[in-house]
Amino acid sequence: QMPRGNLETVHHRALVLSQIRKWLDILSFKEAFECMRKLRINLNLIYDHNPEVFLDNVDLFIKQIDSVNFINLFLTELKEEDVTKTMYCSTSVNNTQSLQCHTKKVNVVCDAVRSSMEKLSPQKFFLAILTSYVRKTPPELETALQKVHELREKSSSAATVSADEALKYLLFLVDVNELYNHSLGTYDFDLVIMVAEKSQKDPKEYLPFLNKLKQMETNYQRYTIDKYLKRYKKALKNLCKCGPDYFSEFLNFVKDQNLYIEALELNPCGSDAYRAINAAYGDHLISTHHYEQAGLIFARCGCFEKALDAFVACGNWHQVMCMASQMEYSQDRVVALARNVAGKLVGQRKQADAALLLEQYAEDYEEAILLLLEGAYWEEALRLIHKYKRLDILETNFKPALLDAHNNNMIFLDNQKTTFTRHQQRLFLVRELKEKAQRNMLEDYVVEYAEADLFSETSSVVSASDISGKYSQSNSRVSSRSSKNRRKAERKKHSLKEGSPLEDLALLEALGENIRMVDKIQSDVHSLLKALVLFGYDGQARKLQKLYEDLLQLIEKSIPEIWSTNIPQITTLGPHSTANSISISYQQQKNVDTTVQDSELFVAPKLSKLGSWKLNLLEQH
Amino acid sequence: QMPRGNLETVHHRALVLSQIRKWLDILSFKEAFECMRKLRINLNLIYDHNPEVFLDNVDLFIKQIDSVNFINLFLTELKEEDVTKTMYCSTSVNNTQSLQCHTKKVNVVCDAVRSSMEKLSPQKFFLAILTSYVRKTPPELETALQKVHELREKSSSAATVSADEALKYLLFLVDVNELYNHSLGTYDFDLVIMVAEKSQKDPKEYLPFLNKLKQMETNYQRYTIDKYLKRYKKALKNLCKCGPDYFSEFLNFVKDQNLYIEALELNPCGSDAYRAINAAYGDHLISTHHYEQAGLIFARCGCFEKALDAFVACGNWHQVMCMASQMEYSQDRVVALARNVAGKLVGQRKQADAALLLEQYAEDYEEAILLLLEGAYWEEALRLIHKYKRLDILETNFKPALLDAHNNNMIFLDNQKTTFTRHQQRLFLVRELKEKAQRNMLEDYVVEYAEADLFSETSSVVSASDISGKYSQSNSRVSSRSSKNRRKAERKKHSLKEGSPLEDLALLEALGENIRMVDKIQSDVHSLLKALVLFGYDGQARKLQKLYEDLLQLIEKSIPEIWSTNIPQITTLGPHSTANSISISYQQQKNVDTTVQDSELFVAPKLSKLGSWKLNLLEQH
Repeated sequence: QMPRGNLETVHHRALVLSQIRKWLDILSFKEAFECMRKLRINLNLIYDHNPEVFLDNVDLFIKQIDSVNFINLFLTELKEEDVTKTMYCSTSVNNTQSLQCHTKKVNVVCDAVRSSMEKLSPQKFFLAILTSYVRKTPPELETALQKVHELREKSSSAATVSADEALKYLLFLVDVNELYNHSLGTYDFDLVIMVAEKSQKDPKEYLPFLNKLKQMETNYQRYTIDKYLKRYKKALKNLCKCGPDYFSEFLNFVKDQNLYIEALELNPCGSDAYRAINAAYGDHLISTHHYEQAGLIFARCGCFEKALDAFVACGNWHQVMCMASQMEYSQDRVVALARNVAGKLVGQRKQADAALLLEQYAEDYEEAILLLLEGAYWEEALRLIHKYKRLDILETNFKPALLDAHNNNMIFLDNQKTTFTRHQQRLFLVRELKEKAQRNMLEDYVVEYAEADLFSETSSVVSASDISGKYSQSNSRVSSRSSKNRRKAERKKHSLKEGSPLEDLALLEALGENIRMVDKIQSDVHSLLKALVLFGYDGQARKLQKLYEDLLQLIEKSIPEIWSTNIPQITTLGPHSTANSISISYQQQKNVDTTVQDSELFVAPKLSKLGSWKLNLLEQH
Repeated sequence: QMPRGNLETVHHRALVLSQIRKWLDILSFKEAFECMRKLRINLNLIYDHNPEVFLDNVDLFIKQIDSVNFINLFLTELKEEDVTKTMYCSTSVNNTQSLQCHTKKVNVVCDAVRSSMEKLSPQKFFLAILTSYVRKTPPELETALQKVHELREKSSSAATVSADEALKYLLFLVDVNELYNHSLGTYDFDLVIMVAEKSQKDPKEYLPFLNKLKQMETNYQRYTIDKYLKRYKKALKNLCKCGPDYFSEFLNFVKDQNLYIEALELNPCGSDAYRAINAAYGDHLISTHHYEQAGLIFARCGCFEKALDAFVACGNWHQVMCMASQMEYSQDRVVALARNVAGKLVGQRKQADAALLLEQYAEDYEEAILLLLEGAYWEEALRLIHKYKRLDILETNFKPALLDAHNNNMIFLDNQKTTFTRHQQRLFLVRELKEKAQRNMLEDYVVEYAEADLFSETSSVVSASDISGKYSQSNSRVSSRSSKNRRKAERKKHSLKEGSPLEDLALLEALGENIRMVDKIQSDVHSLLKALVLFGYDGQARKLQKLYEDLLQLIEKSIPEIWSTNIPQITTLGPHSTANSISISYQQQKNVDTTVQDSELFVAPKLSKLGSWKLNLLEQH
């Protein structure tokens, strides 16, 4: 079908194509078709050359071709691809049409051609009409079979083809079992037997089955057929029509095929069936550990007990209390339930929720307040203290908790500051070292230089020989290790270990993490400062504000220094590279490739708008 | 002082410096000093050459120099800069010391030299000791004056210099008014008069003032002096010592000088004064619109009425209710207050807070539930409905609100999808155009090409000539406009107007904003879906889930396409560039430079972990 590598042929085909295009442009489909058929030009071109013109002139096309075989040939050769793009691209054709969507092209052409043939002469084009059904995606085999069946029933004198011949033609186009299944799918036993007879299937095999089916009630029969054909959703619908007597079979079928959603759609919202399906669905969701959704399903079908358990399991305390109310729990049970759920919430560090439960359902105000203090919800704690006139707690618990929180925040910020500074200094050192290594200095010189200056003066914890070792030979260790532990390494990203090949990335990552952790506590610090001031702990508040502000300023000042450089280049190959160093740099390159997601590492983190957390009353001028 | 541009001199100086360094290394300070003085080498070198060695051998240095004048010369020439870095840098000196911090160098040297002189012979080096005080930052003029004063009192026989001479020397080093103020600052009238006499000030001027001061009570006298010298914090301390009789003056002084924080530190926490200062401070904070902080200050000094108003003004409803409780408001007043604050919170779209107030303080459960529905807090609304047995609201309000919310979310997502798709398509078109322009095609060709392909077929709303105009000449409009509206443009970032020079950035920005808006509603959609399912609106829930999921998938698929390219290069200078185009590209370059913060535009936004919002029970298999 392709030209045989002969330039002349190629040229010849170009001329042919040009001629065909001219014919198609003047709607000489006949000439174009003949020529294409003879020279084995792909027939899709008839449509692809200009889809709109073709669709507007389908009648003319059918009239000109006027041959069932040729139309069948055309339909059979149809495919979704646009041959003007793939096979017969021509420079003169502009290519902006590529923007158009060509999916469903075959279906469009089949439908257009069929509708034209039905109009002109359904009898004459009978086989071509069948082809147009079969060629669709998905094939409309039932309709095609129906056509054949009609033909047999009516046996009109105008028919150019017998039902038998038509069926044979269909079996030529489609696999026999597929056609048999589809005939069964029409629920039309005449059709089934017609196909079965032509199929050379064993009547001993299919007749008993068909007879059994025939004795069934219509809906149950259809359900059985659908089930046999694995059309479970259709089967479900038919089974549903069989009525309440079949409900237990229906419910089992729903469970077996996991068709709860479809089953619910088939039953009205308030019905018993609807409730029963929901209950079964809830059990299913529990068994697949979807507790919250199970709770919702149980709740809507009135299984409040089960719903409550499900909501307890997923920690949805709002719904837990709703369920308890629905079941009209006694006060004692409500208290016990609230305490139980609150305990779980505390375990998840959701003290505010737990406190609400204890306050509003267990009426244990003191415990509620203590939980709020544990979670550093100062204002809410104060509100409850005043609401329930428990001002004694201010001295016994509130103030100690406040000072504790102050202390913890000071320690946290101090640690963050230390880590941040250490990582930053180390990053600058590593960058300097990498840059030097990149300048392809002689290795000896690097070692000497490092010993002379960098490591004698700075407080680096590793000795110079240690470092130079890490930057020269030890990478071989890395490459051997990388294959083994790659997946592990990817999980925990880069190693902060001194001298590790992507230590700079690890440091960048650690610094970003530092910054995010410090930035994140802005609102906590703000509310702590307010509480400290309210109780006159101005000194402590001032210290905290100062420490936090200094740290934020340090970070703000450092961000452009840390993230100023562009994405650091991995050492490339230079005149001094050895086979070993090349393999190392290749390894590193690969590491870098696998971590393209790291690109966010190279974007400076942003601090939230500075200052909103601050109390200006703590600022001394 | 600098070499006269004569190479020989330069060379000579290098030799000299080398010799001086050798002398300094062997601690021959005398030789080094003599030589440096003669050749006008900066004397800082004595210290800077090796700070540690100098500090260890200050005694030796003093003994060798052994001249008040020379030591004065040395001290006077001291400055913070390290001359081995700035004037006399030498390649042989390694430069790692730059890491050391050199601030306060002058203070360190002054203290060291003085302590050595005090040990060796305080009488002999008296003037040099004065110099060492004066040269400090800040100058210790009081101590120097005290020394002179002691000298006059004792007039020891060992003294090598009279008090008068010493004072004259001081006046030679320091401005007379400054010295007079500092003498006043010692509160020692002998000293003041001693300085005043030497100062050629008019006794008629200073004597009445001093006499008036002398008659005052000591603390009030010191306060008056401090105030005169504008040392307000010191003045405050002294005024505080004057006792409660002076409290109103104290409080006025605090207000005038805005020294509330300092005043609070001077008064014990429970005292009347502490309360009064807090009250004044609160007023001050109100007047500067720091309502919340004013509230805290008022609250801690028992001004609950004022505190309540302040907390109402800043919307801190927790504290508002605390204040009401402190003042033992009647039930009626509490209800009115709660309603009032709740109204304000609703105005700020904080329906959950407002609902809590209405529920817990106004006991208006129905209104609370309606507010929760308004804010789409479905579960909390359900909780209250069940808690207060108002199941009637389910039909009257809950379900309608639910369906409303569903509808609004559908519309919102639909709009977002449309905008996203439009912006994305436009971005690709703009990029294509920019790329073509960058390939330095002939302008005519660009226009022709654009007319032929891009704009005839695509649904772009602008005509080709329009576009080409915008990409060729119109940038001149940009450059003329940019100077005028730059600040305005920076505020609203880039223009989405078609053809605007940074349209691609604007589109990137808009797409990022789209994505963030869609991503942000994950939890809202999740809770809406749950509520819909609970009430059996499975169909609606499924539609919403489908739409949202499709949109999230579209976004996820598009992100790598949109953010794949690196930071787009602004058209650079090429063979076809004209003076005009160069100036344009320079302008653009500047625009790009001023928007380096945009770099975050080039980082793909990240969707929150997909799927956690979804109800898998709504998924059909």
